[in-house]
Amino acid sequence: MDRDKILLTPGPLTTTLRTKLAMLKDWGSWDADFNAVTASVRKSLLAIVHGADSHVVVPLQGSGTFSVEAAVATVVPRDGHVLVLDNGAYCKRAARLTSLMGRRCTLLPFDEAQPVSVAATEAALRADPSITHVVLIHCETGAGVLNPLQPIADLCERLGRGLIVDAMSSFAALEIDARKTRFDALVAASGKCLEGVPGMGFVFIRRAILDGCAGNSQSLAMDLHDQYVYMEKTTQWRFTPPTHVVVALHEAIAQFEAEGGQPARLARYQRNYETLVRGMAALGFQPFLDPAVQAPIIVTFHAPADPKYDFKTFYAAARARGFILYPGKLTTVETFRVGCIGAIGPDEIEQAVHAVALTLQDMGITSAAPAA
Amino acid sequence: MDRDKILLTPGPLTTTLRTKLAMLKDWGSWDADFNAVTASVRKSLLAIVHGADSHVVVPLQGSGTFSVEAAVATVVPRDGHVLVLDNGAYCKRAARLTSLMGRRCTLLPFDEAQPVSVAATEAALRADPSITHVVLIHCETGAGVLNPLQPIADLCERLGRGLIVDAMSSFAALEIDARKTRFDALVAASGKCLEGVPGMGFVFIRRAILDGCAGNSQSLAMDLHDQYVYMEKTTQWRFTPPTHVVVALHEAIAQFEAEGGQPARLARYQRNYETLVRGMAALGFQPFLDPAVQAPIIVTFHAPADPKYDFKTFYAAARARGFILYPGKLTTVETFRVGCIGAIGPDEIEQAVHAVALTLQDMGITSAAPAA
Repeated sequence: MDRDKILLTPGPLTTTLRTKLAMLKDWGSWDADFNAVTASVRKSLLAIVHGADSHVVVPLQGSGTFSVEAAVATVVPRDGHVLVLDNGAYCKRAARLTSLMGRRCTLLPFDEAQPVSVAATEAALRADPSITHVVLIHCETGAGVLNPLQPIADLCERLGRGLIVDAMSSFAALEIDARKTRFDALVAASGKCLEGVPGMGFVFIRRAILDGCAGNSQSLAMDLHDQYVYMEKTTQWRFTPPTHVVVALHEAIAQFEAEGGQPARLARYQRNYETLVRGMAALGFQPFLDPAVQAPIIVTFHAPADPKYDFKTFYAAARARGFILYPGKLTTVETFRVGCIGAIGPDEIEQAVHAVALTLQDMGITSAAPAA
Repeated sequence: MDRDKILLTPGPLTTTLRTKLAMLKDWGSWDADFNAVTASVRKSLLAIVHGADSHVVVPLQGSGTFSVEAAVATVVPRDGHVLVLDNGAYCKRAARLTSLMGRRCTLLPFDEAQPVSVAATEAALRADPSITHVVLIHCETGAGVLNPLQPIADLCERLGRGLIVDAMSSFAALEIDARKTRFDALVAASGKCLEGVPGMGFVFIRRAILDGCAGNSQSLAMDLHDQYVYMEKTTQWRFTPPTHVVVALHEAIAQFEAEGGQPARLARYQRNYETLVRGMAALGFQPFLDPAVQAPIIVTFHAPADPKYDFKTFYAAARARGFILYPGKLTTVETFRVGCIGAIGPDEIEQAVHAVALTLQDMGITSAAPAA
């Protein structure tokens, strides 16, 4: 039957019907009613990181990557030098967009199965005083690693360097507290752990550096300082906002708050994660990461060693049973990924594991164990 | 009662319930079902301009301005020189984003009540052979002027200059035929005359120049060449697409085609326009533009001379009756604007005019005539 599939993906993800129903209305982007929605969303976002005193939040049209690019363009001066702590695909993307826009950029490479090293970062910063900013991906969804936000933030503060955090897939699920963690910019998006629909990002910018950001950006559309100043003055977005995406996010945030905010969201994702890993382990699947460095956001599994396995067939069969899996993003090992986030709970995860079990049966695979 | 208001705005605008209902489903951005929707949208867009042989179309996340910036960044080489034909606010915005990204830019100023002059453009191009590209706004929604696309395109072809057309508020309503009008890039967006919801733009790029665009953009997110190459190879968007916006556009296009395509859409907007201007004239309102240069997209009216008029009160009272008007964007004259586009017909326009009549009554204004 034609039922909606469950998305076990890191965003776009499954949203509630209530969130989607908010999109059944058109809004004038100039109208006070809509501007009140924008203001409410911004206020809620700041509250999530306890940042009302220290930060502002600037929403931006486009995907999360647009907001990452805008954060770098706005926060890093033209003659700045960015160090990207690289343990995955999204780190490499951040480095690429930084270099492309003409900012000096250095990559500090790490194993994609491990968090970035604070000691190595400290050594790199001490060795090169020209580095003005560090870019850290909080949860690298390439493999699913949780990176050490607090120690890196402390290090940057101690050494007087700026910090830009890509918190795309961690924001609203993992704890981020601006009162104890110092960052210049932190980036996330509507269609991730807040469980809105995709189409906008948002960037927290530290008030202390805000004025100094004027004129940094070489892009009009991505100038977060200009967007901020205009929004404060007029209550409106500078350019046409994705109105339906904004109201869906507003509705998603109301449900997030009703659920109990970030701690409750993390607890649900943690249950999803544990249910997933336990169920998959019973089928022989082995996670790629050491559980100690794994965020409960997205899990990378090794492909089964059985020669009858291939991802396309596996994906299609799980999909036919109503579950959308996600391909791997590692270059060295064959893997696939399963998201733990979205408007789903352990029941949906159990059903997904059961669908995977039936899929293996159909493929004639008795154990999903990877090559030894 | 809490009924949805009619948006008489140039986008976001009123969409059909059918279009909005398409958003009641979540889609995996990696999934073949969603990629088929993207492919279908792209095919339909190319058909609207009869461009399948000559052009490709590249969708982009964000508002229309993001796509304008991306078109300039992708099509104009770093050492290019852009001439912006300026008869309004959107022209000035195009010039600003061009200069900001580091491309040399010259503004050729015109009266905002008149179309740009082809003769003056020819003189400017002949006088400065370093100009590589011309930027033209097809319908300048600042005042609502229709600019001479065909003569400017012919001129650019004759003089061997590139042409970038911002067709944001004309595309799908006014005729644009790539078989007879040569342009290097033409930009529009989801939430305008196709009557989708806002959140994505799209750019038609001439096949003959496509390969030469590689490496022009200094922005990763806005590199339309990179977006194109990736999409052709994988069928997917490079970065998270606004899935719900894309499926709403797909549904809006199906209704556009069923209505009879561009000629039928233009005919409806033309009826809206005539109904509006006739009804408003009976109340004393006078359009800012000569009807000969007016596009049937958005009409700028002079503010009434009566000292009891002020826009805020006028707007609020019309709004309370269910109709969202739009502020003026001219710097020299006090005006307001009324859009003729969106999923509305002459009935809604008649109701809007009636609401305006009652609003004037409430304000004690007997004639809306402007200062002589």
